[in-house]
Amino acid sequence: MTTFDTLAIIGIGLIGSSIAHAARERGQSARVRLYDASPEVRARARELQLGDVAETLAEAVRDADCVVLCMPVGGMASSAAEIAADLKAGAVVTDVGGVKKPVADAVAAALPEHVFFVPGHPIAGTERSGPDAGFGSLFENRWMILCPREDARAHYAEQVERLAAFWRGLGANVDMMDAGRHDLVLAVTSHLPHLIAFNIVAMAEDLEKVAESEVVKYSAGGFRDFTRIAASDPTMWRDIFLANREAVLEVLGRFSEDLAALQRAIRWGDGDALYDTFARARRMRREVIEAGQDSAAPNFGRDKS
Amino acid sequence: MTTFDTLAIIGIGLIGSSIAHAARERGQSARVRLYDASPEVRARARELQLGDVAETLAEAVRDADCVVLCMPVGGMASSAAEIAADLKAGAVVTDVGGVKKPVADAVAAALPEHVFFVPGHPIAGTERSGPDAGFGSLFENRWMILCPREDARAHYAEQVERLAAFWRGLGANVDMMDAGRHDLVLAVTSHLPHLIAFNIVAMAEDLEKVAESEVVKYSAGGFRDFTRIAASDPTMWRDIFLANREAVLEVLGRFSEDLAALQRAIRWGDGDALYDTFARARRMRREVIEAGQDSAAPNFGRDKS
Repeated sequence: MTTFDTLAIIGIGLIGSSIAHAARERGQSARVRLYDASPEVRARARELQLGDVAETLAEAVRDADCVVLCMPVGGMASSAAEIAADLKAGAVVTDVGGVKKPVADAVAAALPEHVFFVPGHPIAGTERSGPDAGFGSLFENRWMILCPREDARAHYAEQVERLAAFWRGLGANVDMMDAGRHDLVLAVTSHLPHLIAFNIVAMAEDLEKVAESEVVKYSAGGFRDFTRIAASDPTMWRDIFLANREAVLEVLGRFSEDLAALQRAIRWGDGDALYDTFARARRMRREVIEAGQDSAAPNFGRDKS
Repeated sequence: MTTFDTLAIIGIGLIGSSIAHAARERGQSARVRLYDASPEVRARARELQLGDVAETLAEAVRDADCVVLCMPVGGMASSAAEIAADLKAGAVVTDVGGVKKPVADAVAAALPEHVFFVPGHPIAGTERSGPDAGFGSLFENRWMILCPREDARAHYAEQVERLAAFWRGLGANVDMMDAGRHDLVLAVTSHLPHLIAFNIVAMAEDLEKVAESEVVKYSAGGFRDFTRIAASDPTMWRDIFLANREAVLEVLGRFSEDLAALQRAIRWGDGDALYDTFARARRMRREVIEAGQDSAAPNFGRDKS
């Protein structure tokens, strides 16, 4: 049974194209309509047969039962304003942005009162971007966070549940969370890791004393892992850091403070302090594996032939 | 044809046990002898049938054609002193430590003049430790760095080539490098990445406002990658940071400086500066993959079922 008869996906990148694949493969929508601001991306989406590719935003969302905003968060509020007049009364509008509180507030302000807006964020992805990057199993056993608004309408909770059922239909586990809390937790588990990966890789590309070719050649010592995360889409990440400034600056402050303590321990030869920190960090790996959030195979299993 | 008739491996962790597997599977040594300071590890190495496990250091190295020191770098010079009197004249002594210049100087000072000492470092590993962690293909297509000493003896270069042939026999590609340069390059490609991974994971375990369980639950947003690196052996890493202090402090200073610039760009909403850094970092991923140093599959291939 389909959850949304007509699904409209705005923004055909990794997440948008993955939703298109998953919704059709798993029968969650009878019709999938897609739109992207780039004519090249629309043409590619047609070649990939991701669904009915519309030439305008208005055409994409007209009569849609659910509209999913899948562009970088910096463009969400203006996209919401553009589609506002064409949305069907009673439609569910949602998004997949990595920042929730400020983005959801801006999107909500742009939407008409006769739709149900339920912000969301799937904790799933790869380092790839664009319409070719998507695949239907991306959300399997990953968390989908919904951040329902304070909405007093009788049917709002019902529509939240309908959207949750849609995501469960795509294979995800659904969690409800306050938007502000989401932004703080994700600053730790996603935004800060990306920032320091971008930073170390950009730094290594720009060193005076060590050639970039040497860094690449000996990257199996740990560095290569950071290059994967740092290969993520720069526009998407620029928008995330601009939108989640306060939470990111808070956890970044704590990171730098702790790093300064390690720096000091190295300078003064305090081996006990180093050992204690390293041993504390080591324990968390097992918890991540036991929680089903990563492969237990050494080196993520990538090196075994 | 065996390169070394009798091989002695001192320290039976991930690297020591992997050398034992690889040397026997690939016929590089007729006899593999092993020793570890821990009686439990020696007992386990016997159960795993890694080779002839000796009860004393003297017994392990006696008549050995090649001795490989595989303990954390903090213990190498004292181990060298302990075996000095029992080494066969003409034996090749090498190591696998992650820091070369200060460690090699200390080991060289402890060794007798009638052996050939060739420091080395395989750029290969996993996050696992101990005698159970080893496997014979660990060195396949990975770089093995040798840092030959300034040694005027006629046969020294010949013994360096013999050790290089041994490592090629284990599947590795061999590079020669100055010890000081090794320590600077590896500070970038291995030591700094581990330090910041240890730091972010230990920080997340200790936050006031975000529970450890939340970090684990939503770790697929990027954080989980860091937990793998941070699961590495704390003693080994403590020793590396103490031994390679100057190079690590130098690249860490540069990392912190660049991170402060990103922090400022976030605070002042400078999206162009963020975009430029992220786009620059993105490019390096392709080079790492083209150099054969990582899997090209999204997410290291770990999430596909």
